Amino acid sequence: MRQAGRYLPEYRAIRAKTDFLGLCKTPELASEVTVQPIDIIGVDAAILFSDILVIPEAMGMRLEVIESKGPIFDTPLRSLEQIRNLKTEGVTERLNYVIEAIKMTKEKLANRVPLIGFSGAPWTLACYMVEGKGSKSFDVIKSFVYNEPEAAHELLQKLADSVVDYLNAKIRAGCDAVQIFDTWAGILSPWDCEEFSLRYIRYICERLETNGSPVIVFAKGVDSMQKLTELKCDVLGIDWTKDIGEIRALVKDEKAIQGNLDPCVLFAPKEKIKIETEKILSRFGHGAGHIFNLGHGILPKTPVENARYFVNCVKELSIKYHNQKQ
Amino acid sequence: MRQAGRYLPEYRAIRAKTDFLGLCKTPELASEVTVQPIDIIGVDAAILFSDILVIPEAMGMRLEVIESKGPIFDTPLRSLEQIRNLKTEGVTERLNYVIEAIKMTKEKLANRVPLIGFSGAPWTLACYMVEGKGSKSFDVIKSFVYNEPEAAHELLQKLADSVVDYLNAKIRAGCDAVQIFDTWAGILSPWDCEEFSLRYIRYICERLETNGSPVIVFAKGVDSMQKLTELKCDVLGIDWTKDIGEIRALVKDEKAIQGNLDPCVLFAPKEKIKIETEKILSRFGHGAGHIFNLGHGILPKTPVENARYFVNCVKELSIKYHNQKQ
Repeated sequence: MRQAGRYLPEYRAIRAKTDFLGLCKTPELASEVTVQPIDIIGVDAAILFSDILVIPEAMGMRLEVIESKGPIFDTPLRSLEQIRNLKTEGVTERLNYVIEAIKMTKEKLANRVPLIGFSGAPWTLACYMVEGKGSKSFDVIKSFVYNEPEAAHELLQKLADSVVDYLNAKIRAGCDAVQIFDTWAGILSPWDCEEFSLRYIRYICERLETNGSPVIVFAKGVDSMQKLTELKCDVLGIDWTKDIGEIRALVKDEKAIQGNLDPCVLFAPKEKIKIETEKILSRFGHGAGHIFNLGHGILPKTPVENARYFVNCVKELSIKYHNQKQ
Repeated sequence: MRQAGRYLPEYRAIRAKTDFLGLCKTPELASEVTVQPIDIIGVDAAILFSDILVIPEAMGMRLEVIESKGPIFDTPLRSLEQIRNLKTEGVTERLNYVIEAIKMTKEKLANRVPLIGFSGAPWTLACYMVEGKGSKSFDVIKSFVYNEPEAAHELLQKLADSVVDYLNAKIRAGCDAVQIFDTWAGILSPWDCEEFSLRYIRYICERLETNGSPVIVFAKGVDSMQKLTELKCDVLGIDWTKDIGEIRALVKDEKAIQGNLDPCVLFAPKEKIKIETEKILSRFGHGAGHIFNLGHGILPKTPVENARYFVNCVKELSIKYHNQKQ
C-alpha cells in the first residue's frame, strides 16, 4: 500500500516543488519520496511512488489530481467512439518516466529492501475514466457497462493489455514484486464482479512475465475468496474488515496473504496499536506466508511517530510467529 | 430501503414546498410521500419517509441536509462534555412528528400494504455525529473511539437507549415492521465491529417490544454473518455484493433474508433488469423467507418506468418460487 505521502514532512518538502502529477512524472523526485519511508519509518519494502491513473493519462485523457479532492478527468469516457480514440499504442513508452523512476529507486535502495511496483486493475481504471471522478454510487460506470456492455468490454480489454505491458516493463526495469489494485472490485454483484473485474485480473495474471517476482492481487471487498484463490498470483491482499485467520483457512497456504491493519489504528494510542498488531499476527498464526501491512494506503494525518511505532511492533512481535507451530 | 425520493416527479412536487428536514417534520407531507411508491411503482410495503439523523437532531444537534451533498452537523461531537450535554431525555417526545406521520400514513394506506419504520443503529448515528458529515476514511470517528473509548461507549449507549424507545414508539403507533440500519458497520475490523456496532444492535434487538412485528437488521458490509444470525431479529438485510444463495445457506432459514438487487441495475435495459431479478430469485431458491428489495436506497436518477418494471418482474417471476421445492 502507499506508504509515502503527506503525513511525512520530508514528502511535503519535495511535493512543494511541483504538483502531484509532476511528482509522479519526475523520476528524480518520485524515487526520492519512494525511499523516504525506508529511512523514516523503517518499512522493509519500498513501493514505487506513482498513481494508478498514469495509464489513462498516457492514453490521452487529461487528468488533474488535487490531493485533497481526488482525481478528475475533465472529459470522461461515455461512448464507444471515445474509447476507440484512446491512444492505446505506445502507452508503456509514454510511461517511460515510471521506468526511469524504478531504475533510480533501485540505485538509491542499493539492495537494502525490495521494490514493489503496481498498477490499477482494468475495472478500477475504467471506473475513474467513465465516472470522471470519485463516486458514491458508481451509477455512471454501472449504467455504462449495463447499457453498452460491448463498448465496456472493449475498454476493459484495452486496459488489460496495457496493464500487462506496463507491469512486464516494471519487472524488467527492476521491480522485485508487482501489485494489481482493484479498489472498486467490491462495488459489484458477484456475477458482475466476475464479468467486469475478475476476468481481466485473471487475464493479466496469466500474461505476466514475472521471472520469479511475486504478483500481489488486492481486489478490495470481493465476496468470493474462492475465485481469488484460483488466480495465477502469489499473494492476496486483504483490507482490515476481514479476519486474516479466516482468510488463511480459506486460502489454505496456497498463497501468501498481505494485510491487514486498519490505517485508522495509527491514530490510536500506542497500546492500542500494539494490541491490534498482535491480534493480526496471532490470528494469522505461525509459519510463513504473511506480509504484514496496512489494509489500505496510509492516511494524510497519520502521526509519523505512530507509523514508526507500528513498524517496530510488527518487527518485534512477529518473530515468534516466524517458525511453524510446534 | 428508501423508495420515496427525487426520482419521482410526485415527490419533487411536494419536496418543492419545503426543505428536506421540513418534509420529515411535517406529518401530512411525510405521509403523502411515503405512500407515493405504493401507487406509482406498485411496491407491496410502505417505508415511512424520514431520516436516520432525526435522533441526533432531537438530542439538540443542529442538522442541515442538502440532498445532493448529504447531511452536515455544524458542531460535531468531539468531547465527553459535548456527549453529556446531549438532550437524551424526551427524545421520542420531540420526535412526535414521526409518530404523527405513522398514524397519518396508516390511515392513507387503509391496510392496503404494511408499513415499515426504521432507525439508524448507534454506530452509524455516532459516525455522523462525530465526523459531522460523510467521510471516506472515517478517521475522525475512529480516532475518537480509539482514543476515548469510554466517551464513545457512553455516546453509543445513549443512542442505543434512544433507539429502543423510538422504535418501540413506532411499533405502538402502528408500524408493522421495524428496520435497524447500520450503514457503516462494515468499515470496522471484525473485533471493532463487535465492540462498537454489533454489541449495540444486540442490545436494541433484545429490548424491542415487538408484539409480533418483525425486526429487520441491515448491517451493511459486516463480514461475520454468523454473528448477525445470532441476533434476536427476524430478517437480515443484505446488499448486492453478496450471493443471496450463499447467505441463505449460512442463515439456514432461521431468519428471512431481505435483498438484494444493485440499485444501479435500474439504469440497465429492461432485459438486464429481468435477468438480474430472476438470478436473485433463483439463487435464493424455493420456499418462504425472502423479502425481495434493492440492496440499498433507490437512486435519484432512476427512471420511474424501470422501477415499476422491476417491481412487476419480482411479482411475476417470484410466483414459481413461493412453494417449497418439490
